[in-house]
Amino acid sequence: MPQLGLLHGRAWAVLFGQLRRPPGAVCIRAVHSHSQGTRDLSPQQMVVREKILDMVVSCFKRHGAKGLDTPAFELKETLTEKYGEDSGLIYDLKDQGGELLSLRYDLTVPFARYLAMNKVKKMKRYHVGKVWRRESPTIAQGRYREFCQCDFDIAGQFDPMIPDAECLKIMCEILSGLQLGDFLIKVNDRRILDGIFAVCGVPESKFHAICSSVDKLDKMSWKDVRHEMVAKKGLAAEIADRIGDYVQCHGGVSLVKQMFQDPRLSQNKQALEGLGDLKLLFEYLTLFGIAEKISFDLSLARGLDYYTGVIYEAVLLQTPAHAEEEPLNVGSVAAGGRYDGLVGMFDPKGHNVPCVGLSIGVERIFSIVEQRMKTFGEKIRTTETQVFVATPQKNFLQERLKLIAELWDAGIKAELMYKNNPKLLTQLHYCENMGIPLVVIIGEQELKEGVIKLRSVASREEVAITRENLVAEIQKRLSES
Amino acid sequence: MPQLGLLHGRAWAVLFGQLRRPPGAVCIRAVHSHSQGTRDLSPQQMVVREKILDMVVSCFKRHGAKGLDTPAFELKETLTEKYGEDSGLIYDLKDQGGELLSLRYDLTVPFARYLAMNKVKKMKRYHVGKVWRRESPTIAQGRYREFCQCDFDIAGQFDPMIPDAECLKIMCEILSGLQLGDFLIKVNDRRILDGIFAVCGVPESKFHAICSSVDKLDKMSWKDVRHEMVAKKGLAAEIADRIGDYVQCHGGVSLVKQMFQDPRLSQNKQALEGLGDLKLLFEYLTLFGIAEKISFDLSLARGLDYYTGVIYEAVLLQTPAHAEEEPLNVGSVAAGGRYDGLVGMFDPKGHNVPCVGLSIGVERIFSIVEQRMKTFGEKIRTTETQVFVATPQKNFLQERLKLIAELWDAGIKAELMYKNNPKLLTQLHYCENMGIPLVVIIGEQELKEGVIKLRSVASREEVAITRENLVAEIQKRLSES
Repeated sequence: MPQLGLLHGRAWAVLFGQLRRPPGAVCIRAVHSHSQGTRDLSPQQMVVREKILDMVVSCFKRHGAKGLDTPAFELKETLTEKYGEDSGLIYDLKDQGGELLSLRYDLTVPFARYLAMNKVKKMKRYHVGKVWRRESPTIAQGRYREFCQCDFDIAGQFDPMIPDAECLKIMCEILSGLQLGDFLIKVNDRRILDGIFAVCGVPESKFHAICSSVDKLDKMSWKDVRHEMVAKKGLAAEIADRIGDYVQCHGGVSLVKQMFQDPRLSQNKQALEGLGDLKLLFEYLTLFGIAEKISFDLSLARGLDYYTGVIYEAVLLQTPAHAEEEPLNVGSVAAGGRYDGLVGMFDPKGHNVPCVGLSIGVERIFSIVEQRMKTFGEKIRTTETQVFVATPQKNFLQERLKLIAELWDAGIKAELMYKNNPKLLTQLHYCENMGIPLVVIIGEQELKEGVIKLRSVASREEVAITRENLVAEIQKRLSES
Repeated sequence: MPQLGLLHGRAWAVLFGQLRRPPGAVCIRAVHSHSQGTRDLSPQQMVVREKILDMVVSCFKRHGAKGLDTPAFELKETLTEKYGEDSGLIYDLKDQGGELLSLRYDLTVPFARYLAMNKVKKMKRYHVGKVWRRESPTIAQGRYREFCQCDFDIAGQFDPMIPDAECLKIMCEILSGLQLGDFLIKVNDRRILDGIFAVCGVPESKFHAICSSVDKLDKMSWKDVRHEMVAKKGLAAEIADRIGDYVQCHGGVSLVKQMFQDPRLSQNKQALEGLGDLKLLFEYLTLFGIAEKISFDLSLARGLDYYTGVIYEAVLLQTPAHAEEEPLNVGSVAAGGRYDGLVGMFDPKGHNVPCVGLSIGVERIFSIVEQRMKTFGEKIRTTETQVFVATPQKNFLQERLKLIAELWDAGIKAELMYKNNPKLLTQLHYCENMGIPLVVIIGEQELKEGVIKLRSVASREEVAITRENLVAEIQKRLSES
């Protein structure tokens, strides 16, 4: 018996578990589950996911992006000092000798590391991959510790706001294409925020901390955020009030023009740069036909340290159109911005490559689409099987195996029952349940006559076809349907 | 200055690095790289990978498999005692509070955990995903610490050898389809191996250790394996010699029949079961038309603990056909077997679900295909862009942006230069370099006449097309090419 003081957390849990186990329950071994905050994706979920990812990737390719893949873990130092207050959420690997490693927290930092390491000065790439964050798992809100991100980024020195406008166009194309209901993209600029902090009198050492507070305005009221600034972050109340006057503003391009006239902000060089870029951005967005989807929102701050210019975040404005669906709070579904200083952090000489990009939060989109399909009772086929090879007779396994090999070799998606003597009804039921459209049936009579019966599962019609013509006939039927 | 005794590996490396740095070299900060034994995949590599994975997945779908995804990490206890001597290669996550986690070592154990956790008794699934092993990275041989596996498994209680035969058929279809040259699939059965060990006089406590030695016969001579058995694992020399008589045998179905007649082996119940199943397997493989690709090889042992019946491994017989290519030692490219006891290890009541499956070692296949493409100087397009929007004039950015948005909205893959005033020659060169087939050109004259010039990059022919007809004309051209 170990001393109580030496019991670590796990041992306590075991003891506690034994105490709480109801009398009579015998537990030979524990049920293994996946780890907290992660999940398995069932075949149904995989089908939904595959459709959404296909749609996202085809949009990225439409905009000329190349694919790129990076390892799941990076050197720990690569991730250090990139994520501000969120750095505590990084998963570290155990030191088992060798390098100190961490699971990637996003796809942006590995991309910047790749650019610096390979001295790439210009690249438009997409990356679909998992990232890991040690968040408190609140799965009801679609927050996981392992989740998939779809990123598109443009690296390179270009004329201002052209790549930035394309990123917003891509977000619009994807969100419209997925038919998630109405959406809005909030836009702001880190330089405008810094300008506001400066003209309001925030000490420069507090810019990051105050920026983090502003970032909470999508979840907290201004009153609570103001309280945090004053009580927790030691800001003078009158400075907080001045900030409040700004960060509660949002509007279209007219707000940009209004801010240009603002007596205090127009004195700040950084803010003017940001406002100038936003004005240009709105011009391009108008040419792209998406300006009405964009809102200049001074409360948008984005949590991550590495942004240096324009930032944006797409939010769904309402739950999908139909009133009978349960409302689902999904918040932001895509976000991004400009990070001109990140690549330089990885380059031995500090050479920078300006970058702008976006990330689609597909997990939230999965939840919405899944919920919608449940509401409408949509049935999803989890296999693509086209033909089932069946028999009404006993001892026909050999014939079935020969026949199905012919189908597979012709590229036809086919299944059979892994039994020597299955019942015909069981075989036909399986086809109906799985949505398999065609059945080929071989029995004694067919063998004698040198034919195969081809049955349509939907109409239950059967026709006899010679063995030589079977593959061609199946291919014809499949191409028609 | 820390005491020398307190310096850990990293600090030593820094000191050592400073000593070795050539005079005059100034290093402001380190070049960040990916971690040892992992790699980034460049856009070229991604194109090759995507083609290979598409081909593998379409084969899995042809055989009726559903998709499934599991998290990158599992509870540490889920992976414990599954991998025999290789358990030391598992990556653990740092204990940051909460559960003890490990990165998955393969896709098989998470699949078995999924089946038990969800009480699934029958399932045919595929899974393409990364796995992680702390191997000594010998990248020259295509061995990485992070690599992709493509798994197909059939779970359920069925009549013997039908799913097993389908697994071998799938391996043949994939290896033939990828045109990797000639290949052979070695087949054996764990029960036959155990039978051999028993009749040769190996104590049962040494079965696993001796099986691990036999497993090395693909890399070591019998002499060296025998030495390991006798000197390191304490086996009597005459027992080792008896084993040697068996494990050096390989052949077709005739060897199965010969083993049935073997005076010692035919006395062992387990071996007889294995031989009976192999006989049946060969029958089915003949019906599938692949028997000549299969070799009954008594030296095949497979490293993993969880196999309980038939096991198999596909090896390439020669480097790709052409003599001018450098030879590449790739060893086994696919493997698998039957594991009837694994699911029960995760079920609270120990209920088992028999399983059989296979895993395609795609990293090695990537190396071969990449090598082949290099040898033949094949050029790979890394983007799918169909149309480039160009201008010969200054101040035409607005028109270009309007035009490209029209193309994107019509689903056409299009790019433009992110510059206000790019040179026409630069724009056309880019199209040639990137293999973009079409260019639309808009300038003053076109704007005045209400037309767009459509240029074929290959033929350099240009025609004027009215703006209204542009999308339709582009779609027509693309569908013809």
